[in-house]
Amino acid sequence: MSTTTTDVRVDGRASDQLRDIKITRNWLDHAEGSVLVEFGRTRVLCAASFTEGVPRWRKGSGQGWVTAEYAMLPRATNTRSDRESIKGKVGGRTHEISRLIGRSLRAIIDTSALGENTLVLDCDVLQADGGTRTAAITGAYVALADAVEFARSKRLLRSSTAQPLKDSVAAVSVGIVGGRPVLDLCYDEDVNAGTDMNIVCSGDGRFIEVQGTAEGSPFDRAELNTLLDLGAAGCAELALIQKAALEASK
Amino acid sequence: MSTTTTDVRVDGRASDQLRDIKITRNWLDHAEGSVLVEFGRTRVLCAASFTEGVPRWRKGSGQGWVTAEYAMLPRATNTRSDRESIKGKVGGRTHEISRLIGRSLRAIIDTSALGENTLVLDCDVLQADGGTRTAAITGAYVALADAVEFARSKRLLRSSTAQPLKDSVAAVSVGIVGGRPVLDLCYDEDVNAGTDMNIVCSGDGRFIEVQGTAEGSPFDRAELNTLLDLGAAGCAELALIQKAALEASK
Amino acid sequence: MSTTTTDVRVDGRASDQLRDIKITRNWLDHAEGSVLVEFGRTRVLCAASFTEGVPRWRKGSGQGWVTAEYAMLPRATNTRSDRESIKGKVGGRTHEISRLIGRSLRAIIDTSALGENTLVLDCDVLQADGGTRTAAITGAYVALADAVEFARSKRLLRSSTAQPLKDSVAAVSVGIVGGRPVLDLCYDEDVNAGTDMNIVCSGDGRFIEVQGTAEGSPFDRAELNTLLDLGAAGCAELALIQKAALEASK
Amino acid sequence: MSTTTTDVRVDGRASDQLRDIKITRNWLDHAEGSVLVEFGRTRVLCAASFTEGVPRWRKGSGQGWVTAEYAMLPRATNTRSDRESIKGKVGGRTHEISRLIGRSLRAIIDTSALGENTLVLDCDVLQADGGTRTAAITGAYVALADAVEFARSKRLLRSSTAQPLKDSVAAVSVGIVGGRPVLDLCYDEDVNAGTDMNIVCSGDGRFIEVQGTAEGSPFDRAELNTLLDLGAAGCAELALIQKAALEASK
Amino acid sequence: MSTTTTDVRVDGRASDQLRDIKITRNWLDHAEGSVLVEFGRTRVLCAASFTEGVPRWRKGSGQGWVTAEYAMLPRATNTRSDRESIKGKVGGRTHEISRLIGRSLRAIIDTSALGENTLVLDCDVLQADGGTRTAAITGAYVALADAVEFARSKRLLRSSTAQPLKDSVAAVSVGIVGGRPVLDLCYDEDVNAGTDMNIVCSGDGRFIEVQGTAEGSPFDRAELNTLLDLGAAGCAELALIQKAALEASK
Amino acid sequence: MSTTTTDVRVDGRASDQLRDIKITRNWLDHAEGSVLVEFGRTRVLCAASFTEGVPRWRKGSGQGWVTAEYAMLPRATNTRSDRESIKGKVGGRTHEISRLIGRSLRAIIDTSALGENTLVLDCDVLQADGGTRTAAITGAYVALADAVEFARSKRLLRSSTAQPLKDSVAAVSVGIVGGRPVLDLCYDEDVNAGTDMNIVCSGDGRFIEVQGTAEGSPFDRAELNTLLDLGAAGCAELALIQKAALEASK
Repeated sequence: MSTTTTDVRVDGRASDQLRDIKITRNWLDHAEGSVLVEFGRTRVLCAASFTEGVPRWRKGSGQGWVTAEYAMLPRATNTRSDRESIKGKVGGRTHEISRLIGRSLRAIIDTSALGENTLVLDCDVLQADGGTRTAAITGAYVALADAVEFARSKRLLRSSTAQPLKDSVAAVSVGIVGGRPVLDLCYDEDVNAGTDMNIVCSGDGRFIEVQGTAEGSPFDRAELNTLLDLGAAGCAELALIQKAALEASK
Repeated sequence: MSTTTTDVRVDGRASDQLRDIKITRNWLDHAEGSVLVEFGRTRVLCAASFTEGVPRWRKGSGQGWVTAEYAMLPRATNTRSDRESIKGKVGGRTHEISRLIGRSLRAIIDTSALGENTLVLDCDVLQADGGTRTAAITGAYVALADAVEFARSKRLLRSSTAQPLKDSVAAVSVGIVGGRPVLDLCYDEDVNAGTDMNIVCSGDGRFIEVQGTAEGSPFDRAELNTLLDLGAAGCAELALIQKAALEASK
Repeated sequence: MSTTTTDVRVDGRASDQLRDIKITRNWLDHAEGSVLVEFGRTRVLCAASFTEGVPRWRKGSGQGWVTAEYAMLPRATNTRSDRESIKGKVGGRTHEISRLIGRSLRAIIDTSALGENTLVLDCDVLQADGGTRTAAITGAYVALADAVEFARSKRLLRSSTAQPLKDSVAAVSVGIVGGRPVLDLCYDEDVNAGTDMNIVCSGDGRFIEVQGTAEGSPFDRAELNTLLDLGAAGCAELALIQKAALEASK
Repeated sequence: MSTTTTDVRVDGRASDQLRDIKITRNWLDHAEGSVLVEFGRTRVLCAASFTEGVPRWRKGSGQGWVTAEYAMLPRATNTRSDRESIKGKVGGRTHEISRLIGRSLRAIIDTSALGENTLVLDCDVLQADGGTRTAAITGAYVALADAVEFARSKRLLRSSTAQPLKDSVAAVSVGIVGGRPVLDLCYDEDVNAGTDMNIVCSGDGRFIEVQGTAEGSPFDRAELNTLLDLGAAGCAELALIQKAALEASK
Repeated sequence: MSTTTTDVRVDGRASDQLRDIKITRNWLDHAEGSVLVEFGRTRVLCAASFTEGVPRWRKGSGQGWVTAEYAMLPRATNTRSDRESIKGKVGGRTHEISRLIGRSLRAIIDTSALGENTLVLDCDVLQADGGTRTAAITGAYVALADAVEFARSKRLLRSSTAQPLKDSVAAVSVGIVGGRPVLDLCYDEDVNAGTDMNIVCSGDGRFIEVQGTAEGSPFDRAELNTLLDLGAAGCAELALIQKAALEASK
Repeated sequence: MSTTTTDVRVDGRASDQLRDIKITRNWLDHAEGSVLVEFGRTRVLCAASFTEGVPRWRKGSGQGWVTAEYAMLPRATNTRSDRESIKGKVGGRTHEISRLIGRSLRAIIDTSALGENTLVLDCDVLQADGGTRTAAITGAYVALADAVEFARSKRLLRSSTAQPLKDSVAAVSVGIVGGRPVLDLCYDEDVNAGTDMNIVCSGDGRFIEVQGTAEGSPFDRAELNTLLDLGAAGCAELALIQKAALEASK
């Protein structure tokens, strides 16, 4: 991506520049699909588990189910956090992100083509440096694609021609930092952002989810438009990276 | 608001028409501020509790704190839901909405002017017919304003001239139903919406929070723009209703 | 009711005088029966949910089930209480009152005539000023009666002649305040009561539940007898108010 | 006690006859007071723990605190129950009984004379055959008296002349079984009782707690009076047994 | 047992001497097997519950299941501990010991001969003075044997000749206290032990479980060998005591 | 290590042969010490967090604290497991292993030299193929050593000469598989093992923890001796690997 501004950011990137993105497929031996995705120092392990059958409330519908669970290791962050298992309850932020990942993936899945099968995406943040939820979505899609391909090759789907994947999905954060709209915020930028927005796009460039929050003062329509442009372009770039990763031999 | 389309909705409204909005102040005798807010059949009781002091992590900062808790009575809905107190844990949706309300209110509060005092906004849905979170934000602002005024009149703030309220805040849902963008969805519309978006605006017309989700297929930028227009106009109309309610004698 | 003493209470009532009692039926649109019951400033929303089927342990018995859940909104009281959903457990007091309401209602229900159907009574205290449990029982009976009538009219019971309601039920608190036995204590009286008693009576004037507690010093048999007289008379008066409410057109 | 009716009960007792009551003091080596109390086959281990200091909300009041916790071993009953520790929550019945025991003991304690010290009464049912809560109260009083005496002898109270015990307390169940009022119901009687009542009396014969429940049909005032007579006489007899136990050398 | 050293321990025992061991069978009326086992002042109530059927995951296997739950009463110890039921979770130590008891008993059970039946062993520590887990295993075996015999006599097993008990099992603690290896540590010794080991042996003298922990400094192979000798001899002695208890008429 | 038997195992190893052991230091950017340890396909991420201060119960003692938490990612295993955070409680196995790791590390730490500082070791199993707890201990020691060195270099310890590490610690599993004692069992061997034992040794070859369990039939003293020999030799080999890893430049 060409640089459109000359001012550099805390890590030297241009405003519209993604961090180094790495997608390592098959990082695990057991999972039907697995990816270690890295957005700079943010590192998320995404495991896709394919199981036959669906939750009770969906039985007999002929339709599959896709869900996700997000979590962070205690020392993924600068200072250690307590484990949610030990606190005995899952926090609001964790719930919120798990739900976002699940919705984002379901938006590009044809549950009829999936048949009565379930895909669970576990997204565990091994190291956090901002943008963990968007990295998780971006990596989870690749793990999901591998798990779907596994199921197709093992003839676990309804028919050999069924294609549960309607499109790809990628996500990225955008925000206004120091008065300037920037793409793919690292942690240092995130804590200083006046507005923080997560954009989830399908491979065809449309929006699946748009979540913008004024951390400091409210933002106007012009700023919103700029952020949407920046995020859509970032997602398009990520879609190409996902495609390349999936086209590489395993 | 003048009707801009002639097609009627399930309840006869124009696309850009709000439901009947009622704001009843001082619905409770004990709370420092309280509002029963109604968006059509959606009915939310908002209670603002003012207490001196702040949570431990904020002590000594000289700044106040505003937080919110959202919940729904078991029979607010068509079929009864189990109580979260009995299930022993708060669900992800509840957490998500509580956090949204809290963030929205904090965006228009000057915590320095508030001083080391805490405002808790309890938003309990007595009856649900779509748009409970946006009704809650809209009502909670009025309860908050009354509680702040209470604190000012009782000289509980740092100075008599301190004004913690920087602006007002209102919220409304918009969505694409049957291919048409509409304002303030009732439950029947909500379940049929292809895209669902919640818009939170400050009184000066800027955005505090934008949350759009593709329930069915992804939405494009043009649709997004239309929804943003519709939501911003709805919030402006709600701001006037809030103002009128607050100007009425108690 | 005629006044039998001339000394007035904190709110000007005679010893044997109830507070203003209001029963508003059909306060909710969705519930099969619903009542907003007010004993002075105490305000409880009672919703009766009728569902076909019974809990697993009762299946095949041919008998229905009636149960109740009591809760208090955080700001029902003078100072805000923490939510039980957030604390992750239901307190002993809440459990105790839910069980009392359930037992009281089951005492006047013919579960065979109800057939294998379940009625859940949700009693949520919107505002508390003493006597919330007795107000809840009194209001819940009216909501229950409406839900039973709903089920009869929809032919959801075993037969059109089945009448699950064997009688009505009402409840009131009595206590010794400042050495004087009084009826229907408000909060200020309740905290000063030496003895506190809750009386639940069926419409025919018999006792369903009697719970007396010496808060200060023990009470003797004569005091107990006076309290029982006072409570039984109060329940009789409430039974007339319930009857009038149910006879009014909806 | 002389027999007042000639009809025998399931275990051969007269209507007004207690089961064999045994009170074994100092059953434990560590506790400041401990009693194994037996009402026939009902067997409850009551341990009184004396500790200096009071809960936070009572600090600086100069007053002590007495509280109780009731629980049942899994195989105290005919069929094994699940442990509340493993279920992760304490049931309503357990809460209710713990609160009853605590209130009953506090009614005969002078918390000023106790000073800022705490007494916790653990009442664990080792074997259940009806009347576990009343046996627990009766045994707990004796354990409490021993713990108070321990504290006095160790000079842990405010003054050597302080006497925190204002009176004794005992409890017994009464009920209507097969149409006949009877004292101290065993389990077989309890499950067949039409009305079930627990009576807690101070040593001077006054009432501390009266809890009557119509399990079948409501009860009238005459039945209530008979049950109160029966319970008061039973408590008086238990008070003598407690006194004898405490007068025996340890 | 003959004394092999002349130095005495805190309670006057020789290094290889058990505390007074008492096994009281049928301490409960309801349980299929029950034992009050005492190792000196350590007192554990072991109840064996026999029920037909097995947990879901074992259905159709033709094999039975044996499991155990260990717990301690709050005042079993010198200072009162909080109840795990009230804390809402079972601690790590409790889990660990429950699992140890279960594994130890399953090692001597022929689950095929047991058929699809379940035995639950509840081991509740009434008083603790060290070695509660080993006392629990030793007592639980006797309760288990009685429950198996009960099931055989009631013809609840697959065949009258089926013998689910393959052997007996006993357990004892050993440790290095003050530099000297000793058998069956009481609490005072336990807190001062440099190395602490629990030995579980079958009746034929083989090992079922060996758990040794260096509390202070690591231990060498020679010390380990001595402790294994001491523990094996202690278990052999306990096996004789168990045999005698089971041969006594009930 | 030279091979002492010629029979090969499921993965071709000799009886006394470890799997390929890899220790990658500084796998995380934030933690004071971190190691990705691999025992064949078993992969555990060990993060050591150094913080100033100690838990409340240890304040003022002058001594530090070391503790550990073990957990497994949901898809570490062949089939996905539910998250303990979502189940709301930590299982017995997890508790047991966390406690074992903590005890093992504390055995080689001089808490006085550590001063009032805390080290938390998080051991998260990313992929499981048997021996996760022993891999965790082995890796955690290296992470701990790095964190201690970090603290020394930052002068966070009491004195520049203080050396909290008294020795190293390593752990390995041994077991009897197909009648033959083997070292470092992979998952396939583990499920088929008759006896399973975990050995934890200090660098000087002494024992810190010995935990042997008869999964099938009890084991005799000769078998126990062979397993102890095998485990001690395995730990000695691991100690060399740890030493080499720590001597490599970071």
